[in-house]
Amino acid sequence: MKTAVISDAAPESVGQRLREHHRIVLLTDGYSSPFLAKTAISMLRYRSDDVVAVLESSTPTLTAQETFSAGGDIPLVADLTQVPDADAIYIGIAPPGGSLPPAWKPILLEALRRNMDVVSGLHDFLIDDADLVQAAEENGASLIDVRRNRFRQIADGQPFRPGCVRIHTVGQDCSLGKMVVSLEVEQGLRQLGQSSAFVATGQTGIMISGRGVPIDCVVADFVNGTIERFVRQNEEHDFLLIEGQGSISHPAYSAVTLGLLHGAAPDGLIYCYEAGRENVKGLKDVPLRSHQELLNAYEVAANLRHPCRIIGVAVNTRTLSEDAAMAELEWAKKEFQLPVCDVYRTGAAALVEASLQLRAEVLAR
Amino acid sequence: MKTAVISDAAPESVGQRLREHHRIVLLTDGYSSPFLAKTAISMLRYRSDDVVAVLESSTPTLTAQETFSAGGDIPLVADLTQVPDADAIYIGIAPPGGSLPPAWKPILLEALRRNMDVVSGLHDFLIDDADLVQAAEENGASLIDVRRNRFRQIADGQPFRPGCVRIHTVGQDCSLGKMVVSLEVEQGLRQLGQSSAFVATGQTGIMISGRGVPIDCVVADFVNGTIERFVRQNEEHDFLLIEGQGSISHPAYSAVTLGLLHGAAPDGLIYCYEAGRENVKGLKDVPLRSHQELLNAYEVAANLRHPCRIIGVAVNTRTLSEDAAMAELEWAKKEFQLPVCDVYRTGAAALVEASLQLRAEVLAR
Repeated sequence: MKTAVISDAAPESVGQRLREHHRIVLLTDGYSSPFLAKTAISMLRYRSDDVVAVLESSTPTLTAQETFSAGGDIPLVADLTQVPDADAIYIGIAPPGGSLPPAWKPILLEALRRNMDVVSGLHDFLIDDADLVQAAEENGASLIDVRRNRFRQIADGQPFRPGCVRIHTVGQDCSLGKMVVSLEVEQGLRQLGQSSAFVATGQTGIMISGRGVPIDCVVADFVNGTIERFVRQNEEHDFLLIEGQGSISHPAYSAVTLGLLHGAAPDGLIYCYEAGRENVKGLKDVPLRSHQELLNAYEVAANLRHPCRIIGVAVNTRTLSEDAAMAELEWAKKEFQLPVCDVYRTGAAALVEASLQLRAEVLAR
Repeated sequence: MKTAVISDAAPESVGQRLREHHRIVLLTDGYSSPFLAKTAISMLRYRSDDVVAVLESSTPTLTAQETFSAGGDIPLVADLTQVPDADAIYIGIAPPGGSLPPAWKPILLEALRRNMDVVSGLHDFLIDDADLVQAAEENGASLIDVRRNRFRQIADGQPFRPGCVRIHTVGQDCSLGKMVVSLEVEQGLRQLGQSSAFVATGQTGIMISGRGVPIDCVVADFVNGTIERFVRQNEEHDFLLIEGQGSISHPAYSAVTLGLLHGAAPDGLIYCYEAGRENVKGLKDVPLRSHQELLNAYEVAANLRHPCRIIGVAVNTRTLSEDAAMAELEWAKKEFQLPVCDVYRTGAAALVEASLQLRAEVLAR
């Protein structure tokens, strides 16, 4: 029988438990829109071999591909009896504020009774719910709150190993693909035989990679120190692709963004934006700042900590037709005079190449 | 008998309890150096009428003035029997990392047995210590963790009342007097009959004013939102003087600094530095960035959220002779072409004047 690993355990043991799940049910029931279900969609994209079903009864479709444009034939199911051998249920949404939809509690209790682990990236912690804790204990299942942590590391501003080149994705806003860009560039480098690692900084990245720090849920004084320490623990790699969060101009999340930028002390930044987005996500009367203003702000802020430049631009063209997307990428190449990709449509090759070039530069200093 | 108010209570009721303490003992025992005892020193400076003694047995001096250069004849005592009518004991230090010195626990237990409240601004919470909780309950005394909070507000980036001019102190580093500058300018405005308020953002400011938000202990996603909401709750004033924290270039605390800057959306900044300081406090191999680089970084970052300019400079000349201090202030006036004060030596008049001018400008827009 499994012991009930709970989220207060060391991050390493939590990560190991996540990597042991190979028959996962993703829970999105009633929240299948792409903005809300982004955790589920990324799991379908990057951990599809470990997913057996999506619990989603509110759409008439039968497969993940039809509803989420990812996951191929992975079936949508209406309840857990349809997947009797599942080993875990992952909460597949990331709503602002991070609360558990009340209608989901019976589903989680049922999962625990079936001896499945429950994994959550919400701000509301599973282990603060006495009923869930009792059910987990009775069934020897685990409650894993990916965001829960007790990090208390104060950054010391010391240099990293110079051969460990740190590349950080930053953006015009939140939710425009910074995690995906980091994953794709890291994969591209690895495929070329480079020693590289993806550094997850959000709940979805942690669920995918089984490692990382839930930086937006760290107490403010320890944000810089938490990521600094995690990067230091991984500096044996020649490339670290560090997932960005929020935006330096985001009214709500800029504290997290700058803490990452200074704690990770990147050598290079990849600037990410979504074509056509005009306002801050979720704040429709707050316009986004211009690319020029943001590129300047990122360079100024990053260089307060460590010499850093923008190495490329990642455009998300999901709302555009193929022709319009290609035109946008051409415009961006001229506008920024930098390597440009849409990693979804064109792959990450130009950014992989820019990363190799950056490392050569850093080593020649 | 008092009920045991505990720190989970609403911030308002905690603040009210703090304002009810009028016979306070400050605890610094063995930690009387100015950098460590900064909470005690500020309490002696701004709340001296409510302080009856400092528990400090490691120095041979008899008065607060001799040891801390503040507090006049307030006596230093070796134990609580010397102040039988005290109503509270305040932890007077702010060590990096924020842990309670183990030798102090018996002192706190003794205070609780004497029915005194215990007030702490440490990261280590009093109410996580079962012995302290039991002693508080048995004696009907209160444990107040000023830093403990459950703030979960997400910033919305909406404008504030334009007539409420927000002035924020920022600096080259931490621990160089941003709180004192905010308090002195606020006091100066109030003495001229202006409607103004001090907005505390750290444990010492909260202990002094009985209100505010312990921003460095808020979960990162909610830093901007917590200060935004607090400012909004106080926008009936014509001037808000918002205490800054850390520095935008501080390796460890820049996340907190930017969260405040964007959550408070100031109209004006007062830039604070200490003459002669060359390295980040506590990180002696990390040099401070230049004034010009920092002034630019603050202006760039602030203007991402709201139109803002630097309105003046506050110099801390504590390590200089009187002559050298005056020379430093003259140099600063020429260098920055802005109003300059050392609020300790010369008062805050020039910054009060600059604040009035800023408000006239904002209203004329």
